[in-house]
Amino acid sequence: MTMHPHARLPDSLNDCLALDHNDPLRALSEQFILPEGIIYLDGNSLGALPQATAARVNDAVTRQWGQGLIRSWNEAGWFELSQRVGDRIARLIGAGEGEVLAVDGTSINLYKVLCAALDLASARGAQSLTVLSEGGNFPTDLYIAEGVCRERGASLRSVESSGLNAALAAGVDVVMLTHVNFRTGAMHDMAALTRCAQAAGALVIWDLAHSAGAVPVDLHGANADFAVGCGYKYLNGGPGAPGFVWVHPRHADRALQPLSGWWGHAAPFAFTPGYRPAPGILRYQCGSQPILSLIALDEGLNSVLAAESLGGITALRAKSLALTELFIRRVEPLLTAHGFGLATPREHTARGSQVSLTRSEGAYEIIQALIARGVIGDFRAGDGAAHPDILRFGFTPLYVGFADVWRAADHLQAVMASGEWRAPQFALRHAVT
Amino acid sequence: MTMHPHARLPDSLNDCLALDHNDPLRALSEQFILPEGIIYLDGNSLGALPQATAARVNDAVTRQWGQGLIRSWNEAGWFELSQRVGDRIARLIGAGEGEVLAVDGTSINLYKVLCAALDLASARGAQSLTVLSEGGNFPTDLYIAEGVCRERGASLRSVESSGLNAALAAGVDVVMLTHVNFRTGAMHDMAALTRCAQAAGALVIWDLAHSAGAVPVDLHGANADFAVGCGYKYLNGGPGAPGFVWVHPRHADRALQPLSGWWGHAAPFAFTPGYRPAPGILRYQCGSQPILSLIALDEGLNSVLAAESLGGITALRAKSLALTELFIRRVEPLLTAHGFGLATPREHTARGSQVSLTRSEGAYEIIQALIARGVIGDFRAGDGAAHPDILRFGFTPLYVGFADVWRAADHLQAVMASGEWRAPQFALRHAVT
Repeated sequence: MTMHPHARLPDSLNDCLALDHNDPLRALSEQFILPEGIIYLDGNSLGALPQATAARVNDAVTRQWGQGLIRSWNEAGWFELSQRVGDRIARLIGAGEGEVLAVDGTSINLYKVLCAALDLASARGAQSLTVLSEGGNFPTDLYIAEGVCRERGASLRSVESSGLNAALAAGVDVVMLTHVNFRTGAMHDMAALTRCAQAAGALVIWDLAHSAGAVPVDLHGANADFAVGCGYKYLNGGPGAPGFVWVHPRHADRALQPLSGWWGHAAPFAFTPGYRPAPGILRYQCGSQPILSLIALDEGLNSVLAAESLGGITALRAKSLALTELFIRRVEPLLTAHGFGLATPREHTARGSQVSLTRSEGAYEIIQALIARGVIGDFRAGDGAAHPDILRFGFTPLYVGFADVWRAADHLQAVMASGEWRAPQFALRHAVT
Repeated sequence: MTMHPHARLPDSLNDCLALDHNDPLRALSEQFILPEGIIYLDGNSLGALPQATAARVNDAVTRQWGQGLIRSWNEAGWFELSQRVGDRIARLIGAGEGEVLAVDGTSINLYKVLCAALDLASARGAQSLTVLSEGGNFPTDLYIAEGVCRERGASLRSVESSGLNAALAAGVDVVMLTHVNFRTGAMHDMAALTRCAQAAGALVIWDLAHSAGAVPVDLHGANADFAVGCGYKYLNGGPGAPGFVWVHPRHADRALQPLSGWWGHAAPFAFTPGYRPAPGILRYQCGSQPILSLIALDEGLNSVLAAESLGGITALRAKSLALTELFIRRVEPLLTAHGFGLATPREHTARGSQVSLTRSEGAYEIIQALIARGVIGDFRAGDGAAHPDILRFGFTPLYVGFADVWRAADHLQAVMASGEWRAPQFALRHAVT
């Protein structure tokens, strides 16, 4: 972070306010509407609403749909929307034009690329195929891999992060990893792990759900094989926005994906009876996409791509690291005083854009007490000692400022000092988000 | 149609206008915004925009997302939205509460139920499984079945409609049919075919894309096994709105579907590593849904369910048959004079809510010439003698009136009499919708 305006960490609220005021990225935060009195540290789960989205979606509803009706498939460009939005996502993840589609959801896209990857591995002559993943991966990734493996008679193996290299040495066919861990915010070295996995003869799938728009990603630079990701986190596409899928051009024409609907046909409107896959990434389409949600995603991308003239993802990353660093520094005294652990790596190269704290009890209640104070983070349930419960705080550099970080830490300190989190209204009562 | 106000067919434009004026369903058409000067006969492809949708979607964007942010998953009911919307679709298709989900797209839902049906057939001890469909089925249904059969080592057999009974006798495991044919508007006898297929030992999947909201459907009455359908046609959910999936309760807990994402997990937010399917239809969920598009679908359903107090689907069906009957009667003289064929059955019990004409040449150009006159129907390419090119006219009784039908027929007559469809600007130039 040397030489960057965010390199110096502020040491008072006033200092934070001054830093925010002079932030060269301040214009980016003005793109968003956030509720009064809310410090929003959950953009890693659902990105904030860009100002421009309401009018854009309203135009899609009233003019494109209402007036254009069926003609808008051509005239409003709905047909190519997945490709156009995909091309814009490509700029954030080091992919080329015509290589990415904004389509379906992350889980479904993962299913497609897992099947394609297993087909490619089969074609190489591999038998009794094995998919390797991480035990701490986002559950849906593991569930989907379980489904695919059951369909294909393949084996799914998951190990802790520290065991990946040893597991690779034992021989695997497909490696499926999430770049930034949803729970801890730990970030893998994509290039090194890809190299290592490929050297062991495996194909590599990256889930960029917590990476795209948040940290620099270079799929071609890392020579990855497949990638999928999410549209509603750092891309600000709105609730349940379509995800995305990327396939390296060296593979795109060489495998089928089994969700072989008409949109992935070489000539979808020829209405011929036999399936003939479209060239390249287009065969990863299946059916019609939810256009209103896809248009909101396109507008969400505007809010991220607006950074391009201000230093782009490099500038966002520098600010993000400064924000997470400041938060870690400010909550440091709480760690020992109040029994928190820091789940997020201190090393910058191994950290995404969030900070996660662990606590053996009360994680849910503490988050609820913070929300009652207007600081929105979230709780993620653990599943034992290897993956404890966490309090998760996401720092989207587009709209989170240094004063937000300062105040959020103050609130956490107050919640713990007062013991207010023990109030009965914060106790676990229903399914949590 | 005896005794219904729509039973008498009008015999002049004035008569049509009077009938529209006195239409007991007129209040339903006032729910929609349609462009000035347009006669919209393509609601079978993309339903028209309900007046209420723009405000509803805008509220979802600005208040639910913008102000509620991540909290809206609970507070705005986004979590259960697929179920709530599904329960409302259930009322239109003879399904029970808790049996339908509004989720993903038709093609993806078809993939899920085909896999589940093949699993059930396997569990019955069937070997070398066969899926039977129709050659004239909507291509995506056949493409998806092709993909599933390739995955499973099953065989896909497709025969013409007239050959279904003979093919059943030869032994099949799963029958996948579309209730109302996209091309001809021909409607199957769901109860009779289901009975026949089940007597032959097969499970039956119905695609209701052109049925839900357009014709009476009674899945339980027909004792069907599985069904899928589309949200953006007669349900007026907007471009690419999510589709729906129904599984008979006797099967819902007995099979898995392979798109086993976290939303289909018994405890999606427990974040446990192993997949454990949710009970019943909930396991047919995969990932987060496009909430903005799903809310537009919910509002589209309001426009259909508003008919419940005015005679419901029975009243809509009577009007629909009167509209299609009037159109057939009025274009009858063109059939011989201008070389059209009628692809749609004349028999009411075998007709959906559309009328399709065939012509050996010029079908595309004639549709373009009609669109230039403000009459929006569509063209669907054929694939040979069994399925010729068609001109397709959909009659959504919610917003199409008798005067629309009368005038549309007049325009078709004028387009043919003048030969204006031969003008160069109407010639086939690009991918058609």
